[in-house]
Amino acid sequence: MTTPQDAASAAEGAGISQAASTNEQVEIKQVEELNEDGTPLSDNQKKKRAKALEKERKKAETAAKVAAEKEAREKADVDFSAQNYGALPLNQSQERTGRAYASIAQFNGSRDGEAVFFTARIQTSRSPSAKMVFLTLRNRFDCVQAVLAQAPERVSKQFVKWAASLVPETLVAVEGTLVKSPVPIESATVTVKDAEVRISKLHVISAITTDGPLPFYVDEAVRSDAEVAASQSTDRPMATIGLDTRLDNRVLDLRTVTNQAIFRIQHGVCRLFREYLEDADFIELHTPKLQGAATESGASVFKVSYFKGDAFLAQSPQLAKQMAISADFGRVYEIGPVFRAEDSNTPRHMTEFTGVDLEMAFDEHYHEVLDLLRKLFSFIFQQLPKRYAREFALVKRQYPVPDFEVPDEVPRITFQEAVDMLRADGVEIADNEDFSTEQERRVGALVKEKYHSDFVAIDKYPLAVRPFYTMPDPQNPAVSNSYDFLMRGQEILSGAQRVHDAGLLEKRMAEAGIKPSDMPSYLNAFRSGCPPHAGAGIGLERVVFLMLGLGNIRRASLFPRDPKRLEP
Amino acid sequence: MTTPQDAASAAEGAGISQAASTNEQVEIKQVEELNEDGTPLSDNQKKKRAKALEKERKKAETAAKVAAEKEAREKADVDFSAQNYGALPLNQSQERTGRAYASIAQFNGSRDGEAVFFTARIQTSRSPSAKMVFLTLRNRFDCVQAVLAQAPERVSKQFVKWAASLVPETLVAVEGTLVKSPVPIESATVTVKDAEVRISKLHVISAITTDGPLPFYVDEAVRSDAEVAASQSTDRPMATIGLDTRLDNRVLDLRTVTNQAIFRIQHGVCRLFREYLEDADFIELHTPKLQGAATESGASVFKVSYFKGDAFLAQSPQLAKQMAISADFGRVYEIGPVFRAEDSNTPRHMTEFTGVDLEMAFDEHYHEVLDLLRKLFSFIFQQLPKRYAREFALVKRQYPVPDFEVPDEVPRITFQEAVDMLRADGVEIADNEDFSTEQERRVGALVKEKYHSDFVAIDKYPLAVRPFYTMPDPQNPAVSNSYDFLMRGQEILSGAQRVHDAGLLEKRMAEAGIKPSDMPSYLNAFRSGCPPHAGAGIGLERVVFLMLGLGNIRRASLFPRDPKRLEP
Repeated sequence: MTTPQDAASAAEGAGISQAASTNEQVEIKQVEELNEDGTPLSDNQKKKRAKALEKERKKAETAAKVAAEKEAREKADVDFSAQNYGALPLNQSQERTGRAYASIAQFNGSRDGEAVFFTARIQTSRSPSAKMVFLTLRNRFDCVQAVLAQAPERVSKQFVKWAASLVPETLVAVEGTLVKSPVPIESATVTVKDAEVRISKLHVISAITTDGPLPFYVDEAVRSDAEVAASQSTDRPMATIGLDTRLDNRVLDLRTVTNQAIFRIQHGVCRLFREYLEDADFIELHTPKLQGAATESGASVFKVSYFKGDAFLAQSPQLAKQMAISADFGRVYEIGPVFRAEDSNTPRHMTEFTGVDLEMAFDEHYHEVLDLLRKLFSFIFQQLPKRYAREFALVKRQYPVPDFEVPDEVPRITFQEAVDMLRADGVEIADNEDFSTEQERRVGALVKEKYHSDFVAIDKYPLAVRPFYTMPDPQNPAVSNSYDFLMRGQEILSGAQRVHDAGLLEKRMAEAGIKPSDMPSYLNAFRSGCPPHAGAGIGLERVVFLMLGLGNIRRASLFPRDPKRLEP
Repeated sequence: MTTPQDAASAAEGAGISQAASTNEQVEIKQVEELNEDGTPLSDNQKKKRAKALEKERKKAETAAKVAAEKEAREKADVDFSAQNYGALPLNQSQERTGRAYASIAQFNGSRDGEAVFFTARIQTSRSPSAKMVFLTLRNRFDCVQAVLAQAPERVSKQFVKWAASLVPETLVAVEGTLVKSPVPIESATVTVKDAEVRISKLHVISAITTDGPLPFYVDEAVRSDAEVAASQSTDRPMATIGLDTRLDNRVLDLRTVTNQAIFRIQHGVCRLFREYLEDADFIELHTPKLQGAATESGASVFKVSYFKGDAFLAQSPQLAKQMAISADFGRVYEIGPVFRAEDSNTPRHMTEFTGVDLEMAFDEHYHEVLDLLRKLFSFIFQQLPKRYAREFALVKRQYPVPDFEVPDEVPRITFQEAVDMLRADGVEIADNEDFSTEQERRVGALVKEKYHSDFVAIDKYPLAVRPFYTMPDPQNPAVSNSYDFLMRGQEILSGAQRVHDAGLLEKRMAEAGIKPSDMPSYLNAFRSGCPPHAGAGIGLERVVFLMLGLGNIRRASLFPRDPKRLEP
């Protein structure tokens, strides 16, 4: 895309000469000093003639004046800015100039007077008079104030009028000058506080072509509940944008700085997870999501039409990752989609989410794995706010939440200890029963009080509440070698030592009502010898939404899926 | 797991005392010197009695001798090694001693005399006499020779007999001494060439419990075709293990060093991909695989029962990643499963594979993205053999293939140039038609000849052969801003500048027979303004199988899925 200054100046010159060509030359009539018969004029006649002449002169003078005024008027109307604004042709990669694009993130007052060229979205626009437009221009996290003011021979009134007509979210290319701002710019969403851009050229790269107005504006969508509530008693009450409206218009919603930050933090969780595990000699696998049988727990599996038969969507990589352990990969992980056909319409369930899974052969004791998990999460939770400090601050603006507290050593308590804590707190709970959501929250609160940690590993769950492939405790047959991790009192990880003995596995399957013949490949993996191993499955979106206090797991999913939502 | 020496000695003592208790005490009959009627014996009678007595004494002496011999024999049979071998109890994490486990990878002759404790699988076993067993013991890539020899008071014959009965793939814990080998160990699969292990204790961690023998042994499964062919004229011809047998028994097959290496290299491709893109400010997204409509190209989509309605499995993250660009994420990538409901039974198609996708907003020209892709792959292909040198060598042993040649600058030619090369080579090809598989291979060969590269970017494909969302060329309406990358003459990447204008997109959809009303979210993403962008989709397994010359894409997939295979 080019809007070269030379071309613009040339066009401006052409405009002026065109205006000049409309200038009318007024003709003054020459009057002879004789009568029509050739005799000289009498004095009286001379007087009359002079009078007529004077009349005509005045007339001509008036005409000239009118013409000059007309010329001046027309000259003023010429759009000398025509080449400095407008829609660019559709970018089909017509040319590659290599021109440098500036970044709003780098704008500041010390660059006063510098020419800049950049692309941005119009976030807000206001036009206090016909001669001026104020825009805020956003590029991901960064937002700068810009002004376009009518100016003789530089910015035409047509340019200003056109700029004022651009709606928010229009994607524009901007040329202008950075100007230091004498006072800090107040707007909450503007991030460049000590400088603004004086626009000289403005072109549309991509316009808004929706049928009606956008359902909401991005600068409205970043307001915290508290801001919206506080505004209700003012003369400019803000509208609440509901979660469904946001999700129905997710592309727009994702443009908020909050969402840009949330998904960078989500990426950060995966990066740190990988970083830690790869240093610990894990490798990442890609296990199939299409399964031949409805396994693990039949009820909650999606069925797929598979050519002339059926397939089922994996509800976790559980079976495949254990088979990979039997195949001697030793330490494996996977980050990928998992599918749950559960008709759960809650703020913490989705039908598809990102499973973060690991599985590891151990030497002696599954606590080798449990300890690795505790260190892994301590690493993630301590590094994340450091590496993504800006993103955390941005999210907290909209979703205020206390910092997530994790000591160097993640506390580990047994299920029984958690039960005892609950009972001491007056909660009634039966033996060998799993916690309810409410009890889990209470455990989280009690742990927080006692250990100053928002994160806890709970070990030794009752065997009866765990899947068939969970290894029973060697002493107490009612208990298992299994664990959950809670974040702010909600489960984000579930794991265990697995049964690696085919005989015991068959027995456990029978007890769980699963036919061994339904899972031949899985059983065979253990019949050909398998090391003792343990692992865990983690819900990525749960980690993110609980850490950031987003209130609903859907806010941590790019395009969430639940029983009622398959779009966008 | 513990096999403490104290306990072993105690048991040995108990064994001896048990043997002693079987020692028979011979009773010597006391004979009275009177007749039965009470009268004293005559001399003759006394003589007879003495003779009888002597006879009995001799008999008793003989019996005692026999008994002593029996005792000695039984004492010799006592299994003084009983505690040094056998099956361990099922590991239920009974205890955690923190005992250090050695790694076969670290074994060598300089550690002569050192005691080692480690776990391994028995790869092969042979017993040239009743007094000796040779095992090869494998742990992932590493394999050491081990010997168990009968020795007085150290290794009982029972121990040797038991060890000889262990079948390959049994998982064992081994205690022994490293002994420098005077000559290099010849076996091809043994990696520790200058040392072997003298076994003192051997316990089974996990046994083989298959109904019959294993379908093949891991050391058989690493042979190259050439080795198998050459063996046919010898007295020990090797069996070929077919691909289906391998895949039916994939867990066993994956234990080969070749497969251990292949999946480490696959992991390496993803790591390098991430490393490069994260440095270039990309973030990884997780887009939903469950879609509300059968989009992109309706025919090849799997249908899912979704509560009371239907959903469809995403055949790529195409739509979602473009929507992420409209949502201002700027540079995104994803590594995840993609699904193709195509009934293609070829060596290069699967119904589920790992899609490596990226999408990027650009400033001026889609070649900004194409150039990034060329640099990205140059980086991956140059780094991979360096970082995974051992893995490459291991794979090459079984699948010999010429090194993959890539210059620093990946060659880029236009589709028309490729057509011209083919025509110059005598190949007949129509205008504006896509290459056949055979033609693609030929292009690969011709490029290799001309540019000394096994990798090439082909730009500017005919518009007619590309999906509806492909941006037409600005000059030639028959051509598009799209590209494929070929590896050894086969496509591994397909990409393009996308149509980011909603109006043009609707027009292109109509031309492709797709109703815009079927894709409302996708279209809306462009109606609310979208930067120009381009991207690519890459098949991970294709990259791996073509680079390593594996001959079939299934060899690069952990648990491959095709129209006929959903297991294991």
